Amino acid sequence: MEDPSLFSNTQDYDIALTTFSPEGRLFQVEYANEAVRKGTPILGIRCSDGVILTAALRKHSLQEPNHNDKIFTIDESIGIAIAGLSGDARSLVRYARELAQINRLTFDESISVKTLSKKLSDHIQSYTQQGGTRPYGVSFLIIGVDSTPQLYLTTPIGGFWSYKAHAVGMGANQMNTVLEKEYSPLLKVDEALNLAIRIHKETASTPLHPEGIVAAKITTVDKKFEQVDKKTIQQILDSS
Amino acid sequence: MEDPSLFSNTQDYDIALTTFSPEGRLFQVEYANEAVRKGTPILGIRCSDGVILTAALRKHSLQEPNHNDKIFTIDESIGIAIAGLSGDARSLVRYARELAQINRLTFDESISVKTLSKKLSDHIQSYTQQGGTRPYGVSFLIIGVDSTPQLYLTTPIGGFWSYKAHAVGMGANQMNTVLEKEYSPLLKVDEALNLAIRIHKETASTPLHPEGIVAAKITTVDKKFEQVDKKTIQQILDSS
Amino acid sequence: MEDPSLFSNTQDYDIALTTFSPEGRLFQVEYANEAVRKGTPILGIRCSDGVILTAALRKHSLQEPNHNDKIFTIDESIGIAIAGLSGDARSLVRYARELAQINRLTFDESISVKTLSKKLSDHIQSYTQQGGTRPYGVSFLIIGVDSTPQLYLTTPIGGFWSYKAHAVGMGANQMNTVLEKEYSPLLKVDEALNLAIRIHKETASTPLHPEGIVAAKITTVDKKFEQVDKKTIQQILDSS
Amino acid sequence: MEDPSLFSNTQDYDIALTTFSPEGRLFQVEYANEAVRKGTPILGIRCSDGVILTAALRKHSLQEPNHNDKIFTIDESIGIAIAGLSGDARSLVRYARELAQINRLTFDESISVKTLSKKLSDHIQSYTQQGGTRPYGVSFLIIGVDSTPQLYLTTPIGGFWSYKAHAVGMGANQMNTVLEKEYSPLLKVDEALNLAIRIHKETASTPLHPEGIVAAKITTVDKKFEQVDKKTIQQILDSS
Amino acid sequence: MEDPSLFSNTQDYDIALTTFSPEGRLFQVEYANEAVRKGTPILGIRCSDGVILTAALRKHSLQEPNHNDKIFTIDESIGIAIAGLSGDARSLVRYARELAQINRLTFDESISVKTLSKKLSDHIQSYTQQGGTRPYGVSFLIIGVDSTPQLYLTTPIGGFWSYKAHAVGMGANQMNTVLEKEYSPLLKVDEALNLAIRIHKETASTPLHPEGIVAAKITTVDKKFEQVDKKTIQQILDSS
Amino acid sequence: MEDPSLFSNTQDYDIALTTFSPEGRLFQVEYANEAVRKGTPILGIRCSDGVILTAALRKHSLQEPNHNDKIFTIDESIGIAIAGLSGDARSLVRYARELAQINRLTFDESISVKTLSKKLSDHIQSYTQQGGTRPYGVSFLIIGVDSTPQLYLTTPIGGFWSYKAHAVGMGANQMNTVLEKEYSPLLKVDEALNLAIRIHKETASTPLHPEGIVAAKITTVDKKFEQVDKKTIQQILDSS
Amino acid sequence: MEDPSLFSNTQDYDIALTTFSPEGRLFQVEYANEAVRKGTPILGIRCSDGVILTAALRKHSLQEPNHNDKIFTIDESIGIAIAGLSGDARSLVRYARELAQINRLTFDESISVKTLSKKLSDHIQSYTQQGGTRPYGVSFLIIGVDSTPQLYLTTPIGGFWSYKAHAVGMGANQMNTVLEKEYSPLLKVDEALNLAIRIHKETASTPLHPEGIVAAKITTVDKKFEQVDKKTIQQILDSS
Repeated sequence: MEDPSLFSNTQDYDIALTTFSPEGRLFQVEYANEAVRKGTPILGIRCSDGVILTAALRKHSLQEPNHNDKIFTIDESIGIAIAGLSGDARSLVRYARELAQINRLTFDESISVKTLSKKLSDHIQSYTQQGGTRPYGVSFLIIGVDSTPQLYLTTPIGGFWSYKAHAVGMGANQMNTVLEKEYSPLLKVDEALNLAIRIHKETASTPLHPEGIVAAKITTVDKKFEQVDKKTIQQILDSS
Repeated sequence: MEDPSLFSNTQDYDIALTTFSPEGRLFQVEYANEAVRKGTPILGIRCSDGVILTAALRKHSLQEPNHNDKIFTIDESIGIAIAGLSGDARSLVRYARELAQINRLTFDESISVKTLSKKLSDHIQSYTQQGGTRPYGVSFLIIGVDSTPQLYLTTPIGGFWSYKAHAVGMGANQMNTVLEKEYSPLLKVDEALNLAIRIHKETASTPLHPEGIVAAKITTVDKKFEQVDKKTIQQILDSS
Repeated sequence: MEDPSLFSNTQDYDIALTTFSPEGRLFQVEYANEAVRKGTPILGIRCSDGVILTAALRKHSLQEPNHNDKIFTIDESIGIAIAGLSGDARSLVRYARELAQINRLTFDESISVKTLSKKLSDHIQSYTQQGGTRPYGVSFLIIGVDSTPQLYLTTPIGGFWSYKAHAVGMGANQMNTVLEKEYSPLLKVDEALNLAIRIHKETASTPLHPEGIVAAKITTVDKKFEQVDKKTIQQILDSS
Repeated sequence: MEDPSLFSNTQDYDIALTTFSPEGRLFQVEYANEAVRKGTPILGIRCSDGVILTAALRKHSLQEPNHNDKIFTIDESIGIAIAGLSGDARSLVRYARELAQINRLTFDESISVKTLSKKLSDHIQSYTQQGGTRPYGVSFLIIGVDSTPQLYLTTPIGGFWSYKAHAVGMGANQMNTVLEKEYSPLLKVDEALNLAIRIHKETASTPLHPEGIVAAKITTVDKKFEQVDKKTIQQILDSS
Repeated sequence: MEDPSLFSNTQDYDIALTTFSPEGRLFQVEYANEAVRKGTPILGIRCSDGVILTAALRKHSLQEPNHNDKIFTIDESIGIAIAGLSGDARSLVRYARELAQINRLTFDESISVKTLSKKLSDHIQSYTQQGGTRPYGVSFLIIGVDSTPQLYLTTPIGGFWSYKAHAVGMGANQMNTVLEKEYSPLLKVDEALNLAIRIHKETASTPLHPEGIVAAKITTVDKKFEQVDKKTIQQILDSS
Repeated sequence: MEDPSLFSNTQDYDIALTTFSPEGRLFQVEYANEAVRKGTPILGIRCSDGVILTAALRKHSLQEPNHNDKIFTIDESIGIAIAGLSGDARSLVRYARELAQINRLTFDESISVKTLSKKLSDHIQSYTQQGGTRPYGVSFLIIGVDSTPQLYLTTPIGGFWSYKAHAVGMGANQMNTVLEKEYSPLLKVDEALNLAIRIHKETASTPLHPEGIVAAKITTVDKKFEQVDKKTIQQILDSS
Repeated sequence: MEDPSLFSNTQDYDIALTTFSPEGRLFQVEYANEAVRKGTPILGIRCSDGVILTAALRKHSLQEPNHNDKIFTIDESIGIAIAGLSGDARSLVRYARELAQINRLTFDESISVKTLSKKLSDHIQSYTQQGGTRPYGVSFLIIGVDSTPQLYLTTPIGGFWSYKAHAVGMGANQMNTVLEKEYSPLLKVDEALNLAIRIHKETASTPLHPEGIVAAKITTVDKKFEQVDKKTIQQILDSS
């Protein structure tokens, strides 16, 4: 039997709607942020010629290495990395893909990254205000190239922000500190991949194998969101 | 593990509908006001020849400087600044834009600022009385020019008031004290912008950069709501 | 962090439906009455030749003086003053106007003040018995002239009473004591206005400026509900 | 701030559905009875030639004396007196009038007092068993003449009883003790009115004025429910 | 103010759905049984030539003696006595009469007592399993003659049992002890009435008057459920 | 007044949905199992030439001996014995009979015992996962002969198992221990009845009368589910 | 009566929706995982020529040995093993079979194991976010052969992962440690069966009989999911 004093506390969050604390905070949303902060880290960098995403994978020894539940294609020129609860993320990925398809069918062009981020966030916000549900326990880094390379962050409270470079998840504070020092708007996609993977390597608590990381990129040239192959990641890991 | 005595308190606001306290207060609404008081400050001033809005931006070092989630256009001649939860604000901004469009379609003219403020507040009030939801954690400063320049405040309880000049958000008390001393109905739009930005500068806890502030104005001449460009803000900051 | 002992109390009223206490009281309704008792005071007097309403306004120094959220026209010959939450009041004012319009459309005449008071109170009562909502935190003084001058009070529990003269809101006990001494059924509208404003002046905690009070009247002659202009109020204030 | 120990108790009844206590009692219903017991008293007496109702009125000094919220006509030959929450009572009076009208339209005759009492009580009972509502905080004395004079009592739990004479509300125990001593089935309507008003006078905590009491009667001769005029009440008060 | 320690307990049953305790008991149902145990007692006896019901009445001194809220006719050959909350009972009596009528319309014959008891109990059971309601606080003794005389008991948990003789309500344990000693299947209806009324007389806490008891019977000869007249009851009371 | 420390516990189960405990248990379901464990015991044995059921009856002295609420026919060749709440059981028996009839109408043959057990259990499981209800407080032993003799157990959590022999209810542990020692797959129906009744006799806390037990059987010869007559039970009781 | 301190804890999880703890955990989901961890263990191994499943059975001495509630066929080439609550599992097995049939009807081919796992997990995730329900207390190992042999795990939070070999349920940690040491991608189906059954044998707390284990396999040759017969299991047990 666990410590009773602990139990009398569990009551406090188990029976909640998402309501305000006296300090004006939405506790359920802050708790959902904790789920994000405990997710394996993801990282995005906007470059002069495109934008990249990287994500650490947490794997048990016999899990399949090519199983990827961190980075998803939303549209030809838009991709997403997730930090937090993967089940919640899939539900939002489905929603994002529908938004992208509706835009294609209606306007015959790709949805802008900002519009997608805003509409996703509107959806996420509604889960913080209505009864009978809980907030989403996931944050997204969304990248794409429309007029220029784009990198957006969404959060469980329904906020979204445009970033030059940003990391979310376990160890994100440390990663963002490095990013602030080393980021330059002149970075090329390849340089950014190198930087991102090096940051993952330096901040990981255990040695990083190629199977422990996935990456994706999109360039201003072909505007195609594509995953980076394992060999390239291996080479970067070896050389860094 | 956090302090248990703190936890036994969280229960109190996590499970709430919006109901009265013995003192006749609506606690959930007062807590929502706290979210407003912790938002980055916004400020509006009615002038002899128009009306202005300014808003401080809270930015991380790698966030995109031109991302604006504080000031929104509602109609050609109406704009809004928000203090509080940006996700909640967007939901209300959508509602405000629909109100403005319906008025245009029905009467072929811009909605009056007072009517817009009243209808928005009616909507906000309903979230303080119905079960299964929480109040909106956001206050608006709404400006526009109809017969004369207008400046209205909306609050989470569903109240709205007409002001000559007002500030909301973090540090608003200090800002309002300065406004009471320095406000004059003879102020011109340019003078009011100078005053507002100087107040932001004086009350900010850290040095204010042009990227840390946005502004908008509307004059009685062209009745167009428009954002103030960065260069102008820079010049005011330099000269103040 | 606030005092924990205070917090363990907030639970008690935050999670409530409107139900009976062992003493047969409806606590949520009594708490709503507190919101009324803390509102700026309103006062009505029935005269031999009409009936009047006065209301104190609580204004911040830069609030617009001509913004009136205390007295509303319901029908040509009916007006209302509110004490309590202004957002709640507006919701009921809308309902009262609909009742008045329906009566006009159906019977081609003004609704009687008693019928209006009764139907409003029936609506208010239903919010004290159904789940999923809270009572209205507002009381009305309703005046009008049908066969004779009328003055009615509505309360959050859904009661309504006919009065010769009555005050509601902050300081109402003191005001009613003066009214009981000085009221006469022979009072004329002008005398009643003088009496009412003098009572506001005597019971206000700070000096009363013309901007701090609004008034309305209706006479048996023209049966038109109309606001009293600022100049008249100024003159009464000066002479009292 | 009020006594915290009192507050931790308010939780107990504020969050309730109407459910059984371990003693098999429905607490919400018993609390509703308290609201009845605190209402101004009402009294009914069945006579050899009719049946009467009297009710005390609680008035503030400037309330209108002819405002009657205690006795209501339901049908030509049926009337009701209420003890408890007047807002709740009005809701049930509306329901009673509908029942009476439906009976008239369907059978072209007045509803029997017993049937009306039963159907009202069935309605009241349903509010003690369904979730999402609270019981009615009101008791009725219903009088009428069908084949013979009738006097029924309804209670918040949905019970109804036929009485020869009965009092409900504040001081009812004392009143019923007098009734038990002085009641005779031979009483005439006029004698019963005298008895009832004398009982009000003797049990009132303050001197009883004609404005503090209302009365109604119905006789076997004309079977018309009618209010007793003030003059008659004054005469009885003077002579008793 | 009542004892606080008592209040902190009322919370426990006021907020309940009907759910299991760790001992596998349905507390709300057991509490409903308490309401039955506190009702005035009812008693049924199956005889060789019919079956009888008796019920004690709790009367205030001025209540109408011929008001009967304990025994009801369901169908020509079926009757019911109730112990517990009379409002709840009336709701079930309506349901029982509908069942009887549907059977008559469908099969052109009286519903069997067992079928009626079973269908009523199915209905009662559903109120112990669904949310948003409370169990019925009433037990029935149902008598009738179909192929043979029948006596059934229904309980708040939705159980029903066939009995030779049984008593329910206040003092039922003592009554059942007497019944076990004196019951014989050879009893005639008249003897059973004598036995039943004697048991009421012996177990009543105050002297039993004819107005304090009602009785009904049905014989195998005419199969008509009928109330026993006051004179007969008086004679039995006198002779016992 | 009962012990307050007991009361503060009742809160814990009275307000519950069926949710997981930290140990992964569904408490409401385990409490429902307690209702089963306190029911009068039932016992089933699969034989070489059929399968039998026995059930103890708990009877008050004047209850009707031939009233059977423990064993029910579901289909010509399927029967059920219940342990737990009889009202809950009847609701499931109705459902089981509908399943059997639908199978007959659709496929013109008897439903298999396994299919019936599975579908009943699916229904029972749904009451452990949905809000607004409680689990069923009953277990079934289901017997029948399709290709071979069948004996299945259903439980409140929605599980079902095939058994050679099994007992459920009060004293079931002791009964199952005897069954494990004495069960043989070579047992004939008559021998199994002897064994089962002897086990009831040995484990009953009071002497067992023929009226305290019911039995049913189905053989591979005629595949007809039928109750065992009292005389046979008497003979077995006498000889054991 | 159990320990009161234990009871005051049960409240904490009995009244819960699935919401976040301050640590960002979904407690109801973690408690559901406990139900999985207490289930009898299941184990899957992907081989060079197919994939296998094994599952331990918990049996009482008189339970039927051939009753299998651990391994289910979903489609010709897909099978599932379950750990946790069998009632919950059946509900999901039904859903999985519907998904498989819809795929067959729509595309005329078998659903891919990954798609099935994803859609099942989407369904499971929705039970962790919506009010009025609890999470599923079950994990699945899903095997099949589409382009290659597949082995997926689903969890109560709505996650799914591809594995080379994995065990779930009681003792799974120990089993997975052995798997990590002995797994080779070169294993043949027969060797994998040997390994799996040996692991069950070594980690079982009591000696393992053939009746205590079930197994299934599917090979790349015929792509047919089939149960392994008892004789084969016996031989493996004897030889290991």
